[in-house]
Amino acid sequence: MLYPRPLAELLSHLEKLPGVGPKSAQRLAFYLLRASQKDNADLAASIASLHESIHPCAHCGNFTDEEICSICNDSRRDRTLLCVVAEPHELLAVENSGEFRGLYHVLGGLINPLDGIGPDQLTFASLLQRVRDEGVQEVILALSATVEGETTANYLSRQLQSSNVQITQLARGLPFGGDLDYADQMTIAGALRGRRAVT
Amino acid sequence: MLYPRPLAELLSHLEKLPGVGPKSAQRLAFYLLRASQKDNADLAASIASLHESIHPCAHCGNFTDEEICSICNDSRRDRTLLCVVAEPHELLAVENSGEFRGLYHVLGGLINPLDGIGPDQLTFASLLQRVRDEGVQEVILALSATVEGETTANYLSRQLQSSNVQITQLARGLPFGGDLDYADQMTIAGALRGRRAVT
Repeated sequence: MLYPRPLAELLSHLEKLPGVGPKSAQRLAFYLLRASQKDNADLAASIASLHESIHPCAHCGNFTDEEICSICNDSRRDRTLLCVVAEPHELLAVENSGEFRGLYHVLGGLINPLDGIGPDQLTFASLLQRVRDEGVQEVILALSATVEGETTANYLSRQLQSSNVQITQLARGLPFGGDLDYADQMTIAGALRGRRAVT
Repeated sequence: MLYPRPLAELLSHLEKLPGVGPKSAQRLAFYLLRASQKDNADLAASIASLHESIHPCAHCGNFTDEEICSICNDSRRDRTLLCVVAEPHELLAVENSGEFRGLYHVLGGLINPLDGIGPDQLTFASLLQRVRDEGVQEVILALSATVEGETTANYLSRQLQSSNVQITQLARGLPFGGDLDYADQMTIAGALRGRRAVT
């Protein structure tokens, strides 16, 4: 094709983004060509400075632009509750549910032997230390309902058994708005095991 | 929400892009947080320098990073054929069809009185001059099959009547793979009027 070189370069960068194919990359590029110089400069500065400004919270692993994140710093949060998630964006998903007012711990991934990710690559050691030192009473394992999530949950619960905390995990069941006709057998089995009295 | 400020800023920039809502912006931002510093710097530089490096071709209005674009500079192209398009990305669409080996002229838009776009805002004057001075024999109006496209085509064909060139426009008909059951009446009417002998 006959794109001018700078445009072809931009397209190749844009096509690396998730969910962006050649057509969407072209659409984005033409949008940027029509956008103001200032808007483009702002977007570019925002992308370029991302790694300098955002890093993991030294305490829990959440994204933050300070030493300690705003959740860890919030004195109104319940420090006896610790919610364990694999990745920072999952922390945001739990936080957005509005149901949880404790602290978090980000593992940095899930145990996945095929990808060479074992306990040593994850922040298990600092989790165990936090449970030991910070007066935690309940550890909630908010991990995906996948093989890797279950493996990690099993491993962690064994590790935490000696410490005197309650260990829970997210309920399995029908998702909100979920149609029983379309639910798979594992979901229905989980929902049956976790059934609750109608109040 | 509790995004750190630099992340919130990036999200607000990303959400301005076409086809990017809050969810995709978050997905892109988390991708960028995991991407390498170098990849982000390259993408940012590409976006920031776009307006400096890309501008309209002084001759036809196509995007270029030089004074005259590679199509206008290509001596193998047929200079008696001039294809008129509204926007540079439509030029690329025509060029990608592989059917056209002449030159182009980008109008910069279509006549649209509601948006205050009249002939004076478009590059009609330079089009008429090119037709007069450059030995053009056929002007192909490759404009959208919309009210604005038809209006612009009608206006242009009247303007060009006095110059001794053939004026054509893209055929109307069924799109490739188009199902007759789903074609609207205007498309079928256009396809009937433009019917061709089966060879």
